[in-house]
Amino acid sequence: MGQFNHKDLLGIGQLSEEDIELVLDTAESLKVISARDIKKVPTLRGKSIVHFFYEPSTRTRTSFEIAAKRLSADTVSLSASTSSMVKGETLIDTARNLQAMNPDLIVLRHSSTGAPHILAREVPASIINAGDGINEHPTQALLDLFTIRERKGKIRGLKVAIIGDIAHSRVARSDILGLTKMGAQVTVAGPPTMIPVGMETLGVTVVMDPHEAVKGKDVIMLLRIQLERQSAKIFPGIREYARYFGLDRKLVSRAKKDVIVMHPGPINRGVEIIPDVADGPSSVILDQVSNGVAVRMALLYLLIGGKQSVDLD
Amino acid sequence: MGQFNHKDLLGIGQLSEEDIELVLDTAESLKVISARDIKKVPTLRGKSIVHFFYEPSTRTRTSFEIAAKRLSADTVSLSASTSSMVKGETLIDTARNLQAMNPDLIVLRHSSTGAPHILAREVPASIINAGDGINEHPTQALLDLFTIRERKGKIRGLKVAIIGDIAHSRVARSDILGLTKMGAQVTVAGPPTMIPVGMETLGVTVVMDPHEAVKGKDVIMLLRIQLERQSAKIFPGIREYARYFGLDRKLVSRAKKDVIVMHPGPINRGVEIIPDVADGPSSVILDQVSNGVAVRMALLYLLIGGKQSVDLD
Amino acid sequence: MGQFNHKDLLGIGQLSEEDIELVLDTAESLKVISARDIKKVPTLRGKSIVHFFYEPSTRTRTSFEIAAKRLSADTVSLSASTSSMVKGETLIDTARNLQAMNPDLIVLRHSSTGAPHILAREVPASIINAGDGINEHPTQALLDLFTIRERKGKIRGLKVAIIGDIAHSRVARSDILGLTKMGAQVTVAGPPTMIPVGMETLGVTVVMDPHEAVKGKDVIMLLRIQLERQSAKIFPGIREYARYFGLDRKLVSRAKKDVIVMHPGPINRGVEIIPDVADGPSSVILDQVSNGVAVRMALLYLLIGGKQSVDLD
Repeated sequence: MGQFNHKDLLGIGQLSEEDIELVLDTAESLKVISARDIKKVPTLRGKSIVHFFYEPSTRTRTSFEIAAKRLSADTVSLSASTSSMVKGETLIDTARNLQAMNPDLIVLRHSSTGAPHILAREVPASIINAGDGINEHPTQALLDLFTIRERKGKIRGLKVAIIGDIAHSRVARSDILGLTKMGAQVTVAGPPTMIPVGMETLGVTVVMDPHEAVKGKDVIMLLRIQLERQSAKIFPGIREYARYFGLDRKLVSRAKKDVIVMHPGPINRGVEIIPDVADGPSSVILDQVSNGVAVRMALLYLLIGGKQSVDLD
Repeated sequence: MGQFNHKDLLGIGQLSEEDIELVLDTAESLKVISARDIKKVPTLRGKSIVHFFYEPSTRTRTSFEIAAKRLSADTVSLSASTSSMVKGETLIDTARNLQAMNPDLIVLRHSSTGAPHILAREVPASIINAGDGINEHPTQALLDLFTIRERKGKIRGLKVAIIGDIAHSRVARSDILGLTKMGAQVTVAGPPTMIPVGMETLGVTVVMDPHEAVKGKDVIMLLRIQLERQSAKIFPGIREYARYFGLDRKLVSRAKKDVIVMHPGPINRGVEIIPDVADGPSSVILDQVSNGVAVRMALLYLLIGGKQSVDLD
Repeated sequence: MGQFNHKDLLGIGQLSEEDIELVLDTAESLKVISARDIKKVPTLRGKSIVHFFYEPSTRTRTSFEIAAKRLSADTVSLSASTSSMVKGETLIDTARNLQAMNPDLIVLRHSSTGAPHILAREVPASIINAGDGINEHPTQALLDLFTIRERKGKIRGLKVAIIGDIAHSRVARSDILGLTKMGAQVTVAGPPTMIPVGMETLGVTVVMDPHEAVKGKDVIMLLRIQLERQSAKIFPGIREYARYFGLDRKLVSRAKKDVIVMHPGPINRGVEIIPDVADGPSSVILDQVSNGVAVRMALLYLLIGGKQSVDLD
């Protein structure tokens, strides 16, 4: 395998096209491990990985934990709610304290943009950003790219629509950065209050009408509507959102015949996606979850695997 | 060892007498591992087990985790309180998402009857029901059967009294199914509001008077009074319950001389059991806990151990 | 290595000077493991360790978990908040239940003085006190002693000032016991309401003025002000405390030139310590954290490692 010359994975913004291809190629070769009877290789034996989630997360944390264990790393899990470390302590102090225990890698999810960048500057351990505020969620974008490449054989030249709350989504931001970098054409759509000003400077097309957005597309990516964060100020209501932007079969039929439908999960059935579509033949939502484990294994391996080769025999 | 032809363990109801004997025999041969200096065999190395507890539980979760680790499986633990996966996501979606990460087995505790059955239909991973609503708690019943067989040398023909809130206890339900299937004679007793109508159709005798219930019995099984769920509607009061149904030495003396006293824990000292009895020579309460690890090891092995033989050397 | 003839580590009070030296020597030889590429030795393979924290703790729990994993032990983590075991169950019953699952060692943090002592009497597993009420926190004292010896080459004859809420600090209590036992001269300082009556009987000097306390000292140990427990009754206010007792450069300059500044963490920047000093050349605060892992590895090894030798090749 090639060389990944980064200490950390903080965002898609930092990666070159070659970097991304290396991650996807590595993930492809590691994916087979999870399909085996014995789902474990000794590659990261004796490495310590800390999962530090200031925001609650099961899906992402579980995916990272499973990835780490399939590579034989040791893991420790911290959460803000159980963490006295957080009380009255700055993030930098927390980082230095964790570092003093000599972890090889820290996976951080934090509600503040830039938190993993601060950690990365402070500590010699590798940092993976598992989501920082509304900034980036790079491992989600990489698993999305992996899934697209797996299904379509390529990314370059594909037409991708992203629908939802673009303004408040770190997933959207990382996906847009990754897709445009890999040569896809991106169109975004959503209620006006959910589309940030100046999106065009990122090289994407903005439309208001979802019918226009999905027309002729190879890929439709939906974003999760954060029901728990909903307020009257951002959009008129869930029912209105669902009626206008909710992906149903009619909307899907305007895309290419072989369109794939993606969603970072957890899905709100009947809101951003109609069950028919979520469970239909176009949906690759569960592939995304499977591929998440493979992509995270690849990143762990590339960041701290050193010169170890992976035993795939 | 024989063959356990089940993908899942959802309830005692699904098991034949031969199945139960196979579980108990396997547990007996695995029990020795926990008594060793090195409490670990490589049998389930590279297997992924997810412990998913929607209801809080320490005792059962700890028992499962220890069982998994002694067989060298990798474990990930999810709880509803820390689980964003649960937010606005149906159980089926959660199940499919978990499955996408390729676990070999999922241990589920859930407040709704039938939740593990839904999971089992949805996913190829093996499911163990660690308690669903007021329906079943089959691993508890199996460890109870193991403990009885260990102490009495048999189950068939024994006379067993179960005392407490039969109506709202999944432990009672699983124990009754297991005991009657294995040929024991079961008598249940409790306040009228705690005895469901139609118990006799399960093949058990119902009495109101605890003195009559324990008379001549080989085994007395107590159920935990759920103090936290208590309401004036179900029974007159804890003090009244303790005075009438609390197991004291006098009550024990009406059973056979070599009676054993069981309780699924945690015990309410002075409520359903008097400390003298809980700590006395008839009590096998702590044996139940020890045997819980062995029985869970057996189930993990039988469900996902494949053709692996256990190295007991 | 020598012999540690204790089943448990309950407090510094129980240890001889030789015991303490054995722990520190063992920690010194194990510290190298955490600096390696593969941070793991098979010494405690197949041993089960339960981390049972009734009080929230991230720092100490993480340190213990990492220590256990670097020695290849299996760990299970329980906390009071998620623990149904705690509901209506006495500590003794909880202990017996845990013991029934055959752990080799239980690490206990509890808000009641003496809780680990009760456990230790009840169960054959080794117990490590990870903090009990305001009584003792012996592993913190041992890592403090380790850090002092590492930096100063010795403990005997050193002059140590401890500043803060001496009365309500288990860290202070364990440190005083350890330092005086190892031949250091200890001076304590703090607001009058934070200095218990009769401190002199422990062989320490009490002063009120922090300037006097640090004068000519080799070591300054600060205690964390428990902001969350603060009440008007104990001290006038945080601002007043910081102005008078907060360790700044001027105060440090009254100590010896090569003084080291210690703090058990997490630090309250600007309260008990000024950032300049926390991050300055005298500070060994992060060494304490690193050494915490080594000292805990040493204790696990000495208590349950049996005749295993540690493979340090």
